[in-house]
Amino acid sequence: MVPRYSRPDMVAIWTPEARFKIWFEIEAHATDALAELGVVPKEAAAAIWAKGAFEVDRIDEIERETKHDVIAFLTNVAEHVGPEARFMHQGMTSSDVLDTCLAVQLAKASDILIADLDALLVVLERRAREHKMTPTIGRSHGIHAEPVTFGLKLAQAHAEFARNRARLIAARDDVATCAISGAVGTFANIDPFVEEYVAGKLGLSVEPVSTQVIPRDRHAMFFATLGVIASSIERLATEVRHLQRTEVLEAEEYFSPGQKGSSAMPHKRNPVLTENLTGLARMVRGYVTPAMENVALWHERDISHSSVERYIGPDATITLDFALARLTGVMDKLVVYPERMLKNLNKMGGLVHSQRVLLALTQAGVSREDAYRLVQRNAMKVWDSDGALSLLELLKADPEVTLSDAELEDKFDLGYHLKHVDTIFARVFGAA
Amino acid sequence: MVPRYSRPDMVAIWTPEARFKIWFEIEAHATDALAELGVVPKEAAAAIWAKGAFEVDRIDEIERETKHDVIAFLTNVAEHVGPEARFMHQGMTSSDVLDTCLAVQLAKASDILIADLDALLVVLERRAREHKMTPTIGRSHGIHAEPVTFGLKLAQAHAEFARNRARLIAARDDVATCAISGAVGTFANIDPFVEEYVAGKLGLSVEPVSTQVIPRDRHAMFFATLGVIASSIERLATEVRHLQRTEVLEAEEYFSPGQKGSSAMPHKRNPVLTENLTGLARMVRGYVTPAMENVALWHERDISHSSVERYIGPDATITLDFALARLTGVMDKLVVYPERMLKNLNKMGGLVHSQRVLLALTQAGVSREDAYRLVQRNAMKVWDSDGALSLLELLKADPEVTLSDAELEDKFDLGYHLKHVDTIFARVFGAA
Amino acid sequence: MVPRYSRPDMVAIWTPEARFKIWFEIEAHATDALAELGVVPKEAAAAIWAKGAFEVDRIDEIERETKHDVIAFLTNVAEHVGPEARFMHQGMTSSDVLDTCLAVQLAKASDILIADLDALLVVLERRAREHKMTPTIGRSHGIHAEPVTFGLKLAQAHAEFARNRARLIAARDDVATCAISGAVGTFANIDPFVEEYVAGKLGLSVEPVSTQVIPRDRHAMFFATLGVIASSIERLATEVRHLQRTEVLEAEEYFSPGQKGSSAMPHKRNPVLTENLTGLARMVRGYVTPAMENVALWHERDISHSSVERYIGPDATITLDFALARLTGVMDKLVVYPERMLKNLNKMGGLVHSQRVLLALTQAGVSREDAYRLVQRNAMKVWDSDGALSLLELLKADPEVTLSDAELEDKFDLGYHLKHVDTIFARVFGAA
Amino acid sequence: MVPRYSRPDMVAIWTPEARFKIWFEIEAHATDALAELGVVPKEAAAAIWAKGAFEVDRIDEIERETKHDVIAFLTNVAEHVGPEARFMHQGMTSSDVLDTCLAVQLAKASDILIADLDALLVVLERRAREHKMTPTIGRSHGIHAEPVTFGLKLAQAHAEFARNRARLIAARDDVATCAISGAVGTFANIDPFVEEYVAGKLGLSVEPVSTQVIPRDRHAMFFATLGVIASSIERLATEVRHLQRTEVLEAEEYFSPGQKGSSAMPHKRNPVLTENLTGLARMVRGYVTPAMENVALWHERDISHSSVERYIGPDATITLDFALARLTGVMDKLVVYPERMLKNLNKMGGLVHSQRVLLALTQAGVSREDAYRLVQRNAMKVWDSDGALSLLELLKADPEVTLSDAELEDKFDLGYHLKHVDTIFARVFGAA
Repeated sequence: MVPRYSRPDMVAIWTPEARFKIWFEIEAHATDALAELGVVPKEAAAAIWAKGAFEVDRIDEIERETKHDVIAFLTNVAEHVGPEARFMHQGMTSSDVLDTCLAVQLAKASDILIADLDALLVVLERRAREHKMTPTIGRSHGIHAEPVTFGLKLAQAHAEFARNRARLIAARDDVATCAISGAVGTFANIDPFVEEYVAGKLGLSVEPVSTQVIPRDRHAMFFATLGVIASSIERLATEVRHLQRTEVLEAEEYFSPGQKGSSAMPHKRNPVLTENLTGLARMVRGYVTPAMENVALWHERDISHSSVERYIGPDATITLDFALARLTGVMDKLVVYPERMLKNLNKMGGLVHSQRVLLALTQAGVSREDAYRLVQRNAMKVWDSDGALSLLELLKADPEVTLSDAELEDKFDLGYHLKHVDTIFARVFGAA
Repeated sequence: MVPRYSRPDMVAIWTPEARFKIWFEIEAHATDALAELGVVPKEAAAAIWAKGAFEVDRIDEIERETKHDVIAFLTNVAEHVGPEARFMHQGMTSSDVLDTCLAVQLAKASDILIADLDALLVVLERRAREHKMTPTIGRSHGIHAEPVTFGLKLAQAHAEFARNRARLIAARDDVATCAISGAVGTFANIDPFVEEYVAGKLGLSVEPVSTQVIPRDRHAMFFATLGVIASSIERLATEVRHLQRTEVLEAEEYFSPGQKGSSAMPHKRNPVLTENLTGLARMVRGYVTPAMENVALWHERDISHSSVERYIGPDATITLDFALARLTGVMDKLVVYPERMLKNLNKMGGLVHSQRVLLALTQAGVSREDAYRLVQRNAMKVWDSDGALSLLELLKADPEVTLSDAELEDKFDLGYHLKHVDTIFARVFGAA
Repeated sequence: MVPRYSRPDMVAIWTPEARFKIWFEIEAHATDALAELGVVPKEAAAAIWAKGAFEVDRIDEIERETKHDVIAFLTNVAEHVGPEARFMHQGMTSSDVLDTCLAVQLAKASDILIADLDALLVVLERRAREHKMTPTIGRSHGIHAEPVTFGLKLAQAHAEFARNRARLIAARDDVATCAISGAVGTFANIDPFVEEYVAGKLGLSVEPVSTQVIPRDRHAMFFATLGVIASSIERLATEVRHLQRTEVLEAEEYFSPGQKGSSAMPHKRNPVLTENLTGLARMVRGYVTPAMENVALWHERDISHSSVERYIGPDATITLDFALARLTGVMDKLVVYPERMLKNLNKMGGLVHSQRVLLALTQAGVSREDAYRLVQRNAMKVWDSDGALSLLELLKADPEVTLSDAELEDKFDLGYHLKHVDTIFARVFGAA
Repeated sequence: MVPRYSRPDMVAIWTPEARFKIWFEIEAHATDALAELGVVPKEAAAAIWAKGAFEVDRIDEIERETKHDVIAFLTNVAEHVGPEARFMHQGMTSSDVLDTCLAVQLAKASDILIADLDALLVVLERRAREHKMTPTIGRSHGIHAEPVTFGLKLAQAHAEFARNRARLIAARDDVATCAISGAVGTFANIDPFVEEYVAGKLGLSVEPVSTQVIPRDRHAMFFATLGVIASSIERLATEVRHLQRTEVLEAEEYFSPGQKGSSAMPHKRNPVLTENLTGLARMVRGYVTPAMENVALWHERDISHSSVERYIGPDATITLDFALARLTGVMDKLVVYPERMLKNLNKMGGLVHSQRVLLALTQAGVSREDAYRLVQRNAMKVWDSDGALSLLELLKADPEVTLSDAELEDKFDLGYHLKHVDTIFARVFGAA
């Protein structure tokens, strides 16, 4: 975890205190269930809730001797609860606690990330509607293509993050399972009822078949999903970075008073937030492969996944939470320059309308190859003039181009390109 | 693609012929839709279906000049169709064809992979039921833990691949979308009806908002899902490799007559298929990150994703198809040695029953710490004797162990560990 | 391998014919050495060279039965050589042949890649010298910073690829080792002299200690190095893509007559080669992790690395060879527009000189904070005017700016920024 | 950083205090150089050394306003130094400080890692010599092959980590460069002498050509090298994990008094340290791809690499340092069971000697194919008997096997396999 790229709510999920608190709840609920089954005295279960407590430092101290964290935890809790503590953890194995705890943590982390996505979606929709009809040049390969609107770009982002939201909900379901099945998953020393009971209390589903651990394909899918979301963040961040380039300058990250862009060059206003998001996306993606390598544990389990999860559990969720919030902030305050968009759109002498002319020529009976050749030879002149020449005027003057001036002028109408924006918005946001 | 790791049905999806055939269908259906809209003559659409044809070599030849594959294809088709060919591709952009084609290919590939998973699930269920009550030692950290059954191991694998099946169906939905929206996704020169029409004909959903391309978060999710499936393959393969180790030898890959394990050592029977699967899993996982890096295309698209997809489209699906089929074969014919499983289970002098004694002692009023100490000191003697000493006998002889001989003997019952196998099987396979 | 991204010389290394030819040489040289030791008859060694031959199809046929490629090869060669063939492979294990062959292939591949880098370096130096003093704006964060020259950009690329060349030579050394040490690397059945002899004949070094195989850390380092080179390719490709953007247009990939940029938009000239290189870089990087996962083979070896290497051996080297050659072609023919570079440089009203004014003010006794504030407030006006206002004029008019007009004008001299270009070129290319 | 996987010396490199201290030294040395050039007063340089100081909290406070860390640092130092502080950072850009600082940190981290490798190499050599002649079965594919010695396994590890040491030294050289070249690397406002001066003071080489930043191919190579080292750690850790398996049990991690293997199963002694190392290796490898993605910064730099490096700079070096030290501890105290090794070696009824018989038969004139068939048919009987039958006895009894009993017995001599151990040790460790 890098403190500057973290937010407190997500960090709170991953503190030792939070972890031990979940452990305690799992153990206490499990003892309740055991009491209900008559395996342990009801008084013992009550005593655990009543007197149960722990201290992180004390657990650490015991762990240094036992080299086993769950035993250290149980020993510390027993110091508070007294003799009834021996009824805790009956028939359970450490992983029952650890893996179910991780499930709770990842479910909580997912809830924050889903809320992050919701906040982002709200902002994207608002800005999309705001710029629904703000014309801007669409670019393929970084080269001017045909007009779009800035709202369409944002609608695209909205649709992408809405897909990510659905994926994250599926990923949350995948990891939110409870396993309390004993040393190798056979329930030899603990009744399946306990698992069902604890799962119910914690809002988890029951792991249908565990070994000693919850199978790690679930977690691999979870972290892979975070990697996809991070990639979408990078995409939108890259868009902003391009728009803020000096030569383009169609939009800018908000630059707060007092902010300094460069220690050496006072004139600089840099897209540092979206560049930062690009880097954060690399990190979240970097955690995907270790998560996948965790799947092939040996036999009923080895513990190689554990160290990996101590890193990526917090790091991936904290980083993605921060990145989503930062992206939301960037998009919320993004300074948009519609005039500059229009200026850029028009700078290439009308080249962006070339396709319409091509189509009109073919409609008028010219072969596709000839039409392409006719348009291209005039387009290239405009291109070489750096936008000083006008495609419309050149076409009017080209004797092989058989369209009338009026017909040609009609093909250079910007509104023509925007006639289906409503259709697309309806697809993305529902009926207006 | 590595020919030895490929199967013909999946390879067939990725041939140039297959690709151009899909292109042709997209163009022809689109022209039908345009004819229905009255944009092009119905006769033109009919002519395309009637006379349309292409030759891979000819397309390659044209592409060498134009350096543009879709234009080369259209030119070649036009050579067959004649003048009506100019009504093809009206208002469309190359990516409308390419991306929709990729959607069809990935959907077909998914169908094969889903069928592969179905075949694997059938085998896993059959073998799981066959060995439902075959006792074997459960191992954590490679160390004997407590008894399980071999059927439980297979049930676990079944549950994992059933999850993978569900994930793959979701991933298929994600990529099976049709975009025919023109140069930058605005439908400026083509009515959205065409997209809906072609999508319907090809069994795809409509892309709600495209740029020039279908957004690549969809494909990233698809390949990430394949990476998870590959990781599950590695897990089961690793299990077999462990079981076939000389010292364990509880199961073996089927060794066909005539097969040679080693050029130098005639006695060798090696788990080469599952080792191979381990390597193939690495490859399929290796394609995940490039797919994620493809998401952040510039503006309305750049073409950097295309080369990546020319590799990973075929390579990931062909490799995974082969791997799933190979795994199915391995599991189908896996030679299982129940006697050896039992022999191994019993070799550590009853250590695997240590937990039950621990629990019985705590139930009898001994503190957890004392019980742990009592069992551990006897267990360590057995351990150090390499299984020559018997834990049961040592415990009987330990004066501090307050359980009676009969009570102790009861704790060494194998059946005790298997009493919930039915419960777990019902969870995984439904009611018997 | 994707045919369109491959070149024949590199492909030739990886054909079955080429592989079997290397196998034959290893076996024949080894038999020579065994003959020299008196272990086998000299006539046998001679017979192998004289009569030895193989057919790929026949080997495949035998392998289908034996499921072992080296045995199939030896059987086929024996069909040609006759009884003396039994002296081949004496005391060797398959991996002696396979791994030494891979070493030869990777060494050959390295030689091609080194030659590719040499060709690229020549082009980069030529173009760097050509544009040594071509001023262009340096950009950080995509925002105009201060002037550089286009030659400096290319000198930077040259230095980077020169580093990559040195790394590749080291990586070649790492993999170019010969192991002929028998079944588990003990030389039990073959004298170390054979290894030394064959290594000498093939231009390889001797593997100091092998197991059954050459250790895979060597190959991991090799493929990691290719991944770094690919990343450098991506960097230079990205630079070109940026320079070709419509709004920047300071350089363009060469656009051949007959080439079509878009099926729909005749005016387009897209940086498709460098976009393609960006994608190819992703692929080469994607092979790094599988290569690293190959290191941890079990005990004296398992064969999981083999399938991985069947993919990445050819795919990584063929793709990188193609990419280096394509990049060399792009840089060789890159169309550079110095006038546009100058126009862009000047477009921001002199903002790029802001730092010099800042420094001059501090030299004149103004505190750094005040100087920063003074320059920034004028710079921001220029920025907001989209370059319509002139920083120089604003500064002259600012009463708090204590520098004289002449002093200010001096700070706006372009030559000032280029005075150390010679120094840097001498560092990179040596004395002129 | 995960505290439990970190050691103080490496952590100390990455604290804010340590970073700011290096920044201060860079700035102070640079001011000395500027004074030597006569650009700033010598008194100013002296004042900076004399009065310069900083407080982490104060820097953080200023950064919250300026959103620029180097400006915040300079402002804080100026609060201590007074007016002479304006001579600091003259003509420099933030990256001159940041990148040179990172170079110092990575060089220091490399020095610790090299020392770690040295310590590991010492232990590996000691244990290798100790077990130079301890016979153990060599295994390929997890299947018994032929005898090796445990010392050979360790010699192999030694050679591998010696290679890694050489690679790390090269990687250190790659990143240990100093860039003080101003805003876009042109030295426009700072003489190259300053760079040379500071580089000399800090023990770095001079970056031949920088942009605003030191090129990131250097760092990519560095982190890739760490990934290879991590993979070697995984390999040796995996070896230990295999050896400690219950059925193998040829070696064990040292198990300290008081340590508990399982909360539920008192008999367990698990290879948790080497499993942990397996997981840590995954993490270090996971940082390689982000480092490579950092190479393609835009133009003269963007800041996307920065966030990545804030994670992987500390995380990769701290984790690898911890892992190397842990591995050294494991190998230092590894409990080795030579008797068990011998017992395992002998358990397969002499199968491990099958190749020698095969060779002897071919030497005696039997064709390779016939010899293979003869040995295999007897070997398979032994295999099927689970080692109860003796290969030697079966061969004696096989009428087609033409070797005498004495000749056969000679082929079952263990010493035969160890005769070149000295040769190999001399290659790895030099002359004894």
